[in-house]
Amino acid sequence: MPAKRAINLQEKFGLFSEQWKPKVVAEMNDYQFKLVKLEGDFVWHQHAETDETFFVIEGELRIDLRIDGGVGAVTIGPGEMFIVPKGVEHKPFAAREVKLMLIEPKGVVNTGDAGGEMTAKNDVWV
Amino acid sequence: MPAKRAINLQEKFGLFSEQWKPKVVAEMNDYQFKLVKLEGDFVWHQHAETDETFFVIEGELRIDLRIDGGVGAVTIGPGEMFIVPKGVEHKPFAAREVKLMLIEPKGVVNTGDAGGEMTAKNDVWV
Repeated sequence: MPAKRAINLQEKFGLFSEQWKPKVVAEMNDYQFKLVKLEGDFVWHQHAETDETFFVIEGELRIDLRIDGGVGAVTIGPGEMFIVPKGVEHKPFAAREVKLMLIEPKGVVNTGDAGGEMTAKNDVWV
Repeated sequence: MPAKRAINLQEKFGLFSEQWKPKVVAEMNDYQFKLVKLEGDFVWHQHAETDETFFVIEGELRIDLRIDGGVGAVTIGPGEMFIVPKGVEHKPFAAREVKLMLIEPKGVVNTGDAGGEMTAKNDVWV
């Protein structure tokens, strides 16, 4: 039986300051809830095997999306969520720091198929 | 390609007033995000096949849990979440109306193994 205490997201965000390194706070079946602080530009990438949920806790996140040969964008504010469908190329961007919760299957790598220096270590808990 | 617009939870909560009837707002793979307004006592029940995530948007939710022959309780406030493990009997309670987001596999029934008159129609979207 896991801890019988709720997980407070702001409390968890207070435990780290580094950006672009998702931290797991909970698991539901084979899915994980991860908190991450973002600022600036991420890399274009996609996840071929899974949808990915972005839930903004604080700040404003833009996700650029490559759809039908063009580029679209969605803006996500506090209390808003967006699900990037599997196989859709996307690139998060935040003009100022954003506090974000990601929900996705355990094992998903932040940079997806792109790799590179922004790839974060997986399954790090806070 | 789904809508390229974020889902605003408060906007969605504004579209219904009935309590205890979860409304789907998004799908990620075979999981659903459901909004529900709760007030008062629910029924004891369990979900044998899946964990269930409770994310409180507004108000305070108590979940009573039957563990190791005893009864425990967890209190979940705004910006807090709790995951009830599969097979654990639980009973939500709210002294005043709570706005809640549930995250669980598609097809999960609100009353689990208990059934009864509080069983809500499944897969209703808002």
